[in-house]
Amino acid sequence: MTATTTSDLIQRFRNHERPALARLVTYVENERPAGLRAMAELYRDTGSAYVVGITGPPGAGKSTLTNAVIREYRKRGKTVGVLAIDPSSSLTGGATLGDRIRMLENFDDDGVYIRSMATRGEMGGLSMAVGAVTHLLDAYGFDIIVVETVGVGQDEVDVAELADTTLLLQVPGLGDSIQTIKAGVLEIADILVVNKADIKGAENVVRDLRNMLRLGEHGPWLPPIVRTVAMHGENVPALLDAIDTHRAHLETSGEGQVRRERRARREVLRLAQNWIAGELEATMRDPANDAMLDDLLRREINPFEVAEVLARRTSLRIQSRT
Amino acid sequence: MTATTTSDLIQRFRNHERPALARLVTYVENERPAGLRAMAELYRDTGSAYVVGITGPPGAGKSTLTNAVIREYRKRGKTVGVLAIDPSSSLTGGATLGDRIRMLENFDDDGVYIRSMATRGEMGGLSMAVGAVTHLLDAYGFDIIVVETVGVGQDEVDVAELADTTLLLQVPGLGDSIQTIKAGVLEIADILVVNKADIKGAENVVRDLRNMLRLGEHGPWLPPIVRTVAMHGENVPALLDAIDTHRAHLETSGEGQVRRERRARREVLRLAQNWIAGELEATMRDPANDAMLDDLLRREINPFEVAEVLARRTSLRIQSRT
Repeated sequence: MTATTTSDLIQRFRNHERPALARLVTYVENERPAGLRAMAELYRDTGSAYVVGITGPPGAGKSTLTNAVIREYRKRGKTVGVLAIDPSSSLTGGATLGDRIRMLENFDDDGVYIRSMATRGEMGGLSMAVGAVTHLLDAYGFDIIVVETVGVGQDEVDVAELADTTLLLQVPGLGDSIQTIKAGVLEIADILVVNKADIKGAENVVRDLRNMLRLGEHGPWLPPIVRTVAMHGENVPALLDAIDTHRAHLETSGEGQVRRERRARREVLRLAQNWIAGELEATMRDPANDAMLDDLLRREINPFEVAEVLARRTSLRIQSRT
Repeated sequence: MTATTTSDLIQRFRNHERPALARLVTYVENERPAGLRAMAELYRDTGSAYVVGITGPPGAGKSTLTNAVIREYRKRGKTVGVLAIDPSSSLTGGATLGDRIRMLENFDDDGVYIRSMATRGEMGGLSMAVGAVTHLLDAYGFDIIVVETVGVGQDEVDVAELADTTLLLQVPGLGDSIQTIKAGVLEIADILVVNKADIKGAENVVRDLRNMLRLGEHGPWLPPIVRTVAMHGENVPALLDAIDTHRAHLETSGEGQVRRERRARREVLRLAQNWIAGELEATMRDPANDAMLDDLLRREINPFEVAEVLARRTSLRIQSRT
């Protein structure tokens, strides 16, 4: 492994060697310099993949739907890369890495690549890594990239920002299911999927969603509601058709370009934030600040004054780097 | 209201006028410049309050315990300021603002101030505001500040960082309750409280906690396990004694000073991060970057190169500020 240089890896990646892809994803996920160099190098090969986000509450059947979506895309001759975000908190439930690996075994197929990533709990940490891995899968040549995440907290919104089309799953039988759609979450949905549509209460979920859509605001695109039974692949072709319709809408309306610009802005903002945060932490470690921190503890200076000095010292540090 | 200047407000705050405290807390919470100026001005008056953090899963009885703790501190002649963090997510449950207000009505007492704050979902956002409000309550002269938060996600760890003594509540009857203590959460606890100790299963919870403590690592302080029935105030005096014992330990061991230093470092780091993030966003909005962002969308430049330019431009912006 020591003999493998980054440029070797990139070459093997370009030759479509799967282990090179896997290793670069790991490097990017761990923010190793080699991963970032590779991503920078491979970025020019991106831009042809279509990103589908799948989100929804625990128990909505996201993994099963992802499976069904992969199969249907494969039938249509598309290659699919999947990023499944595993929440690190035990509270959120959802599929485990073990489930993922079992799922992976179902696709002994060069046209499918499935990868789990754990969330990290730091702001921007997840979406930065997910964004970078998305670029790798794009550069590798997958037609479709599916990013699947459990619908809890900020992650779902972050992931929706990465997707061209975001599916929001709901199911009957999760209690007052509609109440679980938090403010701001319905707005990220381009397509509403009522999964497990064969069980009791599905029509109530559809009706409630329709009412929420009627009350809420939306632009020229009215999110369709698609009923699926992912377990049996039922209506999954219709779901893919709805994704295609949304894709066509994005292009004809110009909204696709707007989203790509917004996404690029967010990505560079996060990368810059991350870089500056590293420099700020390095500044903090400089013993030159110790006297000032002692003054702070004696209340001879206030936290805002200290923060300002630290920000200035950080800016000098950034300037001095080449 | 227009006639009220910040220095008027600060004067009234120093005269112990409750409305001035409430207004400054609101200003700080909303990051209004007047709030930040006041906090900077009042910081020199801080340093005498003792901060008790209370955290635990939804349903553990945190509000009830907070109530009981307030009553017991009042009996002991101490004034108490309470910050109750309301999670904004509907998924986490817990007491609502309405419950808080009812609770507040129970304390028609100048020695008690209770304030709810909503979490905001941005990293550091909560703890920065909570930290700043803690300073205000400290400067106002409260002997004890209680920071209560639901034990879900990063917030509990952030809040523990602000506290001198952190209580972790557990209760019987939440299923396999001990399993809900996530990695890293037990370590933040200075005192373990088994609340609702009069119901079935309480002794199992105590035993499980004892085993976890035995297996885990801890320093010279072994967190005691205190059984309470907060609803009837049962054993709350013993809990306050345990807090006093921990407080004495912090001072004699030097750990109190270590924590104060760590806390001050974290606070200035977050303030600096926040300030730099604002400058970075301002940099992003500068139309001078538009051409570079166009190049990025055409893949003539990669996101890392753009982020680096943005970081440099931000550092120049910071330098040019006085």
